[in-house]
Amino acid sequence: MILNCPLPKLDFDTINIGHGSGGTLTDQLLNAGVFKLLSNEYLDKKHDGAIFTLNGKIAMSTDTYVVSPIFFEGGSIGDLAINGTINDLAMCGANAKFLTLGLVLEEGLKMTELWEILLNIKAACDASGVKIVTGDTKVVERGKGDKIFINTSGIGEVHPRANIDMLNIKDGDKIILSGPLARHGITIMSSRQGLQFETTIASDTRPLNNIVWQLLDKYGEYIHLLRDPTRGGLATTLNEITTDTKLGIDIIQNDIPVEEEVYGACEMLGLDPLYVANEGLFIAVIDKSIADDFLADLKAWEYGNLASIIGVVTAAHPKQVVLRSTIGGQRVINRLAGEQLPRIC
Amino acid sequence: MILNCPLPKLDFDTINIGHGSGGTLTDQLLNAGVFKLLSNEYLDKKHDGAIFTLNGKIAMSTDTYVVSPIFFEGGSIGDLAINGTINDLAMCGANAKFLTLGLVLEEGLKMTELWEILLNIKAACDASGVKIVTGDTKVVERGKGDKIFINTSGIGEVHPRANIDMLNIKDGDKIILSGPLARHGITIMSSRQGLQFETTIASDTRPLNNIVWQLLDKYGEYIHLLRDPTRGGLATTLNEITTDTKLGIDIIQNDIPVEEEVYGACEMLGLDPLYVANEGLFIAVIDKSIADDFLADLKAWEYGNLASIIGVVTAAHPKQVVLRSTIGGQRVINRLAGEQLPRIC
Repeated sequence: MILNCPLPKLDFDTINIGHGSGGTLTDQLLNAGVFKLLSNEYLDKKHDGAIFTLNGKIAMSTDTYVVSPIFFEGGSIGDLAINGTINDLAMCGANAKFLTLGLVLEEGLKMTELWEILLNIKAACDASGVKIVTGDTKVVERGKGDKIFINTSGIGEVHPRANIDMLNIKDGDKIILSGPLARHGITIMSSRQGLQFETTIASDTRPLNNIVWQLLDKYGEYIHLLRDPTRGGLATTLNEITTDTKLGIDIIQNDIPVEEEVYGACEMLGLDPLYVANEGLFIAVIDKSIADDFLADLKAWEYGNLASIIGVVTAAHPKQVVLRSTIGGQRVINRLAGEQLPRIC
Repeated sequence: MILNCPLPKLDFDTINIGHGSGGTLTDQLLNAGVFKLLSNEYLDKKHDGAIFTLNGKIAMSTDTYVVSPIFFEGGSIGDLAINGTINDLAMCGANAKFLTLGLVLEEGLKMTELWEILLNIKAACDASGVKIVTGDTKVVERGKGDKIFINTSGIGEVHPRANIDMLNIKDGDKIILSGPLARHGITIMSSRQGLQFETTIASDTRPLNNIVWQLLDKYGEYIHLLRDPTRGGLATTLNEITTDTKLGIDIIQNDIPVEEEVYGACEMLGLDPLYVANEGLFIAVIDKSIADDFLADLKAWEYGNLASIIGVVTAAHPKQVVLRSTIGGQRVINRLAGEQLPRIC
C-alpha cells in the first residue's frame, strides 16, 4: 500500500498553522493528495456537505479518537477511527455506508505521519466498503493538541431484521464474546511503557460490520443486544446492561477467552483483563434457543476461533454482574471506577 | 436560561482524566445533567448510535470547532458548533435534523464552563429545531488539548426544489451577500487582544436553515449556489467559485456591506474585511431574473437589512475575482494566502 501511494511532493514537511486557515495552504494540503486518495463521487464535489439518497431505517454514530501513541502494533489512529465508527454502527445492527472525517492537527505534525494515517484510513475504508463523503481540517498551535485527533461520524442502513434493544433482554439469555479480551488496551499500554513481550501482542482493531450483518441475516430478532466492550472493558459493558435492564448477569471465569501472552502482560502491568479496552470485539446477548448455532457460526469467522459463551442473564441477582470462578468462588464485578488507561482510543 | 438550568450538584468541579474512561466517572459526568439537558427519544436510548427513519435526499456534514477563546461577545464554542453545522447543511439546501456531538475535553476544564457551553448547545438546538441524537466524550491530559474541542456532524433533508451545484453557475448570475462582513473574525481577534471598541462588536453566529428553506421554497432551482464565507472570508469563497467554474466574478466595493465599527476595527488591526471570517452569513449565486425579488425577501429577514447584490458572474476574466472600487479602479482578489487568524471556529 505505502509503496503504491508515496507521499505527494510538497513544499512543506510539517503541518503549520496556515494549513487550518481555509485558504491557500489548506487547499494545498487537501489537493496535494488527500482528495485524490479518498476520492469518491460525493467527496469530489468538495461542498460543505455531501448529498445522497437514503430510504428506511438508518443508524448514526460519532467518535473522536485521541489515542496515544498514534501508531501502535497492529494499527494506527487511522484504522481505529474508521473501524471504531463502523463498529459502533454494527452494534446498532447497521452496515456503515458513509463516514465524515474531522481532523484536528497539531502544528508540527510531520507530513509523513499524516500521510501514513491517511493511507490507513483509505485501506480501512476500502476493506469495509465505506466512503468518506465530507470532512474538515483544523490546525491548533503546538502544545494545544497532541499530533492528531480524528473524529469520524457515520451513517449506515439498519438490517431489516435487526431489533437490538436493551428492552429485549430477558432472564436466560446467553452472552457470547466474539474473541479474546484485552489485546488493544495491552498493546497501547505496553507501547507507552516501552515493554517488550516474547511474542508480539497487537491491537485487535478490525471492522465488525460483515460478520454482524451475516449473523443478523440468520438470527435477526433472536439477537437482543450487541455491544463492543471498548473503554472500560467487558466489565463496564456488562454493568451497563445490568443497570439498564435491572437484570443480573453471571459470567464464568474459565469461559472468558484471554490469550496467554495477554494474560501475562496484564499480570505484569497489574491490570484485570475484564477492564482493559478492546476494539474489534463484540458481545451478543441472544436468545438461548440459538446459542449453540450462533457460537458455531461465530467460530467459523476468520477472527472467531476463540468465541465463547461466557455467561447468562439472570433474574436471580438484579443489577449485579457476578463472576464465578473455577473453584466455586464468586465475586461481584463493578464497572471501571477511575481511569485505568487514558487515551486508549 | 442559566437561571432555569443551574449546574447540577457534582462531587467534582473540574474535568479529570477519569471522565474519559468510559467507566463510572464518565457515567457520573453524563448522568449528572448532560443526558437530561439534551434529552430526546434518540439520545435517551444511550446506545452506541442513534436509529431513525429517513427517506429521500439527505445532506451530511461535519466540522470540528477549536475556537479560542471559547466564550466571546455574541456566543461561545457551543453556539458555534451547533449553528456552524446547521449552516453547512443549509448551504447544501438541507434543513438540519439530527446532530452528533463529540467532545474532547482538556483535563482541568471547569465544570461551570462546560455546563455553560452545554446550555448554549441546548439553546442553539432548540432555536433551530435540531436534535443531538448521539455523542462521545474524550478527555486528554493538561497541555494536550485546549479546554474543549467540539465536533458536530449532522444530517438533514434536502429541499425538494434545491439544486445547488457549482455547475449551474453561469455568466450573468448575480451574487448576493446576506449581511455585513467580518463580525465574527473581528470579535474573536479583539477578544484575544483585549481590545475595546466604542460600540460592542459581536459575533454573527446564527442558524441559517430557516431563511434558506424559505428562499428555496420560493426560488428553488434559480438558486445556483449557496456558501457561507467562514474561514478565509468572502475573498476565499469567491475564489473557490471561480476556480471550480472557470468563470470570473466582478464585485463592487461600495456594494459590500461592512459596519462602520467593524471597518474601523479592521483598519486598526490591519485586516482586510474581505478575508475575515464570518459565521452567520451566506452568499447566494442566483439567476439574474430573480435578483431583485430575492434581495427584497432577504432584506425582510430579521438579519437581512444590510443584504446586498455585491457582484456578478462573468465570462470576461475566467478564474479571476475582480474588485471594482468607487473611483473606477480595479484589483484582482486572491484567496487567503497564509493564516490571518488561527482558530476562528
